[in-house]
Amino acid sequence: MNTQGDWQLDPRLAEDTHPVAHLGLSELRLMDDAHHPWLILVPRIPGARELTDLRASDRAVLTREINVGSRVLQALFKPDKLNVAALGNMVEQLHVHVIARFRNDIAWPRPVWGTASASPYSPEALVQRINALRDALDA
Amino acid sequence: MNTQGDWQLDPRLAEDTHPVAHLGLSELRLMDDAHHPWLILVPRIPGARELTDLRASDRAVLTREINVGSRVLQALFKPDKLNVAALGNMVEQLHVHVIARFRNDIAWPRPVWGTASASPYSPEALVQRINALRDALDA
Repeated sequence: MNTQGDWQLDPRLAEDTHPVAHLGLSELRLMDDAHHPWLILVPRIPGARELTDLRASDRAVLTREINVGSRVLQALFKPDKLNVAALGNMVEQLHVHVIARFRNDIAWPRPVWGTASASPYSPEALVQRINALRDALDA
Repeated sequence: MNTQGDWQLDPRLAEDTHPVAHLGLSELRLMDDAHHPWLILVPRIPGARELTDLRASDRAVLTREINVGSRVLQALFKPDKLNVAALGNMVEQLHVHVIARFRNDIAWPRPVWGTASASPYSPEALVQRINALRDALDA
């Protein structure tokens, strides 16, 4: 389900990511870039662009959902660092990146945005990764 | 005050930023880069590197302090977009960037990190900006 009331997933986010889980507030999605274990959380709040557009109670839920996504990446990938960011310079719909970073990844120590073209998952790798994420979410 | 128990501000953050306010959990500081109105929040939690290192109650406070910093930037600068990020690839101590972005700023639409050398404030501009931030915080 990509809609909640008037909410619809931004077409660019829909194209660049794959669904992982429908959380209480947010869609949890996987960025289609095998360079980095990279989650995107998209709160289903119509018209939200900034974190400040959310009600405080929704911001609190989003904070917890960011923590859930972060814990899943830590459990599965044991990253050297997490990068957590709400930027939105390119896609206006509020979305939060949670990215597992490694000292030997393609962009380190720079941020991931704009440093290398995305490397789409093969169908098999995509299914495997999404299943692993869902299992870790359920654990 | 830059210490709380065993907590000490990272020397790189101390060098790159100026103190604005001592919030309940975090030091609120201004990045010394006149290219962008750019705040840094540094929770005074010894050893914290990741948001997941904080207790849930501290994460909730940090979420509120990020919102305070965001509102201050919105009130003073009316940015086209806020960028909010906890990266930490270069400086390990947990810190959160809150940056006012404009469609005509030097890095748009890219993230600010690594795109241009910092442009330090003149002493007069620095005092003026910090006073404006403090006034907005008190408002």
